[in-house]
Parts: sequence; C-alpha cells; structure tokens
Amino acid sequence: MSAWRRSGERPVLLIAMPQRVCDEVFGERRLRALAERGEVHGPVSSFDDAAAPHLARADVLITGWEAPRLDAAVLDRAPRLRAVLHAAGTVKAHLSPEVWERGIVVSSAAETNAVPVAQFTVAMVLLAGKHVLPIAARYRRERRAFDIAEAFPGLGNADKRVGIVGASRIGRRTIALLRPFGFDIAVADPFLSAEAAAELGARLLSLDELVATSDIVSIHAPSLPETHHLIDERLIGLMRPGATLINTARGEIVDQEALTARVLRGDLFAVLDVTTPWILDDGHPLYDHENVVLTPHVAGSLGTELHRLADATIAELDRLLAGEPIRHPVRREDLATLA
Amino acid sequence: MSAWRRSGERPVLLIAMPQRVCDEVFGERRLRALAERGEVHGPVSSFDDAAAPHLARADVLITGWEAPRLDAAVLDRAPRLRAVLHAAGTVKAHLSPEVWERGIVVSSAAETNAVPVAQFTVAMVLLAGKHVLPIAARYRRERRAFDIAEAFPGLGNADKRVGIVGASRIGRRTIALLRPFGFDIAVADPFLSAEAAAELGARLLSLDELVATSDIVSIHAPSLPETHHLIDERLIGLMRPGATLINTARGEIVDQEALTARVLRGDLFAVLDVTTPWILDDGHPLYDHENVVLTPHVAGSLGTELHRLADATIAELDRLLAGEPIRHPVRREDLATLA
Repeated sequence: MSAWRRSGERPVLLIAMPQRVCDEVFGERRLRALAERGEVHGPVSSFDDAAAPHLARADVLITGWEAPRLDAAVLDRAPRLRAVLHAAGTVKAHLSPEVWERGIVVSSAAETNAVPVAQFTVAMVLLAGKHVLPIAARYRRERRAFDIAEAFPGLGNADKRVGIVGASRIGRRTIALLRPFGFDIAVADPFLSAEAAAELGARLLSLDELVATSDIVSIHAPSLPETHHLIDERLIGLMRPGATLINTARGEIVDQEALTARVLRGDLFAVLDVTTPWILDDGHPLYDHENVVLTPHVAGSLGTELHRLADATIAELDRLLAGEPIRHPVRREDLATLA
Repeated sequence: MSAWRRSGERPVLLIAMPQRVCDEVFGERRLRALAERGEVHGPVSSFDDAAAPHLARADVLITGWEAPRLDAAVLDRAPRLRAVLHAAGTVKAHLSPEVWERGIVVSSAAETNAVPVAQFTVAMVLLAGKHVLPIAARYRRERRAFDIAEAFPGLGNADKRVGIVGASRIGRRTIALLRPFGFDIAVADPFLSAEAAAELGARLLSLDELVATSDIVSIHAPSLPETHHLIDERLIGLMRPGATLINTARGEIVDQEALTARVLRGDLFAVLDVTTPWILDDGHPLYDHENVVLTPHVAGSLGTELHRLADATIAELDRLLAGEPIRHPVRREDLATLA
C-alpha cells in the first residue's frame, strides 16, 4: 500500500453504500477528510454500469450498512482493489469468500460499533439491579408513595451477579465497562477458557449455571443457526425470581413465547432492544408490562455515534496508506463465529 | 482507643436508630459482627430513661437514619462516649456542635452512600445522551417503527458534554465513573479550582456556561439556603434544546415550576429522582410527559446497598479499636458545605 505514497499517485476510493447511510455515517466533514486522502467516488448503492468506471480504478472500497454485495463477478471488474474498509459492524452480508481468496485486506468498524451497545447494556444493568424502571412505571401509575422494598424484594446493586452470555466483542467490552461497579461478573461462552475469563475479570460458568445464578443476564452471543433459541423455555424457567434478562443481540436467540409467558407470571424482568419480529405486533402484551423495557433496536450506533464509525474507518485508511498494518482486520475464518 | 485492647475490656456499643432502620442496614449478620467486637445495646430510637443506663456506659455510638439528636444534655449523660459512627450519609440532623467540642470522633458512611447515587446518575447519563427512555415511551405509545433520528435530533453518546453541578462527594464519584465513557465532562463549583477540576478529569466552567453548553446537566450540589432554586428560571432558559436535566440531589435546588413549563414546551428532557414535594400531587403534568423519567427517591442506598453502609461502619469500628485513624472523619467545619 505504501507504494501509493512513494509514487505520489493518489489512491482511488470508492464509497459503496446508500446515499442516506453515507450522509449519516460520514457527513460533509468526514467526506472532506476522505477527499484529502484520495480521489473519492460514490457513494454508489449498486455495482451497476454507472459504477463500473470507478470500480475499474478503485484501490479501496469503503462500505457501510446496505452495501451492495461484492462477489466474484464484481471483483473481476475491480482489478486494482486491495482493501475493503467497512464503516459498520458485520461484513457477512456483503462480502463473499472470493474477497479473501484474492488477497484483499478487509477491515471493519465492529470494535467501534460495539461501544454504544456495551454502554447501553451497562446503563440497563445498573438500573436493573435496582428495578429502577419498573419502579418508575409503577410510580407513574400509582402517583403516591409505596413500600419499594416490599414491592421489589431484593433490590439493590450490591451483592449482585451479572451473567454475560457470549464473550463476543460486545460481551468483552461490557465486562470491561462493568468492572468499576462492583458486581460479581460471570460469563458463559463455549470458546472461552476459565483463565481467559478471569483475565477479562469474570468467572466462567456453564450457561445453565450462569442463567440459574445471575440476577441479571445479558445476551451478547452472535445470531447463528446454533444460537437460535439458545435461551429456551428450560433456561428461562431456570432464571431466578426477580431476575432481569437483557437482550441487545438478536430476538431469535430467545424463545420469545416462553419469555413472554414468564414475564406475564410477574417474577421476571426484561429489557429488550430486539424482538421477533423487530417491531412487535401492536397487540403484543410486552408493550404494556411494567416489568419490561422495550426499545426499537437503539442500542447500536445511532446519531452522533455513527460518526465514530467513519472516524475509525478513516484511521484504518491512514494506516493502509502509511504502509502500516490495519488494526481491525477481518479474517475469512472469523466469519463462522462472528455476529 | 487502643486502650480497650490493652486492658482487655470490651467496648460498649450503643446503636441509636429506629428498629426498622437497624434491620434494613445491619440485619442479623452484621449485628453478629458488632457483637463479636463489643458489648452491643440497642437499637434505641430515643435517648430516654430506658436508654440511660446504656448511654452512661457507651464508648461508641452507632447511628443511622432517623437517629435521635445528640445535644449537650444527652452528652452530659454519656461521659465515656469517644466516637459516633454514622451508618448513613449526613450527620447534620442529629449531631450538635457540642459533639466536636467534647473531642468526640465522628465518622460517616457518606462515601459509601454516594456510590448508588453516582451509579444511578451514570446509568441515566448513558441513556439520556441517546434519549433511550423517551424513545421507549414513544415506542410503547405508537407500537410501530418511527424515524428515531428525526424524532430525536442530535441523539447519540458521542461528542456530548456532561455538566456536573457541584464537586461534592457524589459529584466527584460520578465524574470518576463517567471517565471511561468518552464524554466531555464539565464541572461547576464555587469552591473548586481549574487545576483541581482537571485532576478529577473535568473542565471547570461557570454555572452559566456549564448549563448553556452541556447536553446533560446533573445536579450534585448540597441543599443549603444558598442553593435554593440554584437552577432558576433563567438557567433553565439557558439549557440547550434537547438537553436533559438530571436531579438526584434535592427538589428545592431547581425551580420546579420553570422546569415543568419548559418540559411542557417539549424541548427539554428531565430525569427527576427528587421533586418538591417528594411525592408530586397526582395531577402533576410531569407524571405523564414522555420526556420525563420520574422516580420516588431511589437513587440513594436501598435494599442490598444498605448493607454496604453497615460494612463501612464496621470497618471504621475496627480501625478505632485497633488504634488506627478512621478513614471517613467528619469535621465540624465540614458541616457548612455538606449536603
């Protein structure tokens, strides 16, 4: 890559994502930053004939949410392509195995994209240990003082176990951010050793034990065929009375029917940023239950947080152009276990 | 104090707080821990005749919320008293200046009591930067997808300023806990230097500038005559459109009428754990507004968090008995500026 610098030639950068995504993630200021670094084309939302001349010359492809798919046929028309920098989380949807086969470097902003989800989780853990939002819902309804300790037995953030399901990028970051708050942190992950868990600051438990002994269970597993209904009716039944389930990952990981049934019984709390489907039918009982916080998929990067993805992408571009190793490579073998 | 150890005599400990408070804060296990350390009497909820024989022999008084007042007349009946350990926050209500005049050591668990409030604040800051709870309220009402960025312009935790009003114990702890989250943290406090603010990890601003430039303003000032309506109509008018005011301190610090008027105009968010009066009239408009989170004074120690106050008190007792300096002394001159 440093050849570009030596020859004095400006790299050709092609932005491949819908205009709307480009506006939200890059905006004017970050597009200017790209233009200082190379000859910028796009955004293109498909690799059709209009995009062909730029594809033919592109050294670096900058992709984002809803980027068009990069398969062998497209790659054949992009002979100079040396890197794909993804200004979002997962590259699964738009990159085919041929990208790696052709030796193209792939980077993603998944690490940066993990930050808002971990922050959302930390906030919800801190409130869940004390049942703050169910208390607020009840206060709004009753409009008078009530015996909080009697209504919510065992509340308080002291002496509480938080169970993290999945030592994913987001799971690890959540553990790190939770450490100053004095929780007993447990983690369940089939690919994690007890030593690695201890290094993260958590104790490794089996999924069964984690679910059965945690006061707050937060899901950070990837959505894969193997994790469909990972939190099934049996595990939901194992959760402690008064415990809270937090799901910021994917609705499909939880047996929603079993979860709803237990929430309606009244002894389980839930914070659900994702459901199945993503927007529940308007008659769904979870909307009305005071023990549930329901948000329409907002834990991930939104608003000002999207600019951080552009910043991370520009930082990777700078490393590439300086001939340095990129910091957030995505390897082909990672695809099987990533979200 | 180490004299007790040398003589082999067991110190006499008198617990002065209502039975209910003693049960919640100490409970059986921590009462046993006290009994291992001395001859325990009480709890007494007043220093009446029934308490007199214990008062006459007490070496250490262990007080809590709603403890009876310790004035000169009571002190005259407590000739052996050498320390008051308060298993709660402020000692203002129950200790008179004579306590210090007689050389009695005073310690409080205010530092421990600050922890839950700071945690509550951090959680609410993280959610406020993204307007998560107003989004949840709207989602519950609309029950369909809506354009979040359009409904809540400027949302996101990146590039946000959090303004802390008051470098109190809780204010400082909040700043410390907020540091890993990447906010621009400002603080306003008439007794703080710019250097001391920088050491905390915050930039010192005047109250006007802090209020006018912060996306989230959190109040951690003590309730004193000088801070009554500190956040008055003029300052509420200076707050940025879309900003959030968090109050976990005392309702009296904010001009609630002016705050309510601006919230009803629709461009200010509020998280109020305290109001005036503490429980609002059931027709108050703040109950229903989607941009307001209202909780009935739950940010402080509750439930399991109360045991931490007992633990901190027992740790101070151990230092006393070992002849070591206590860790959380309250000096008479602190009273004027403490909450």
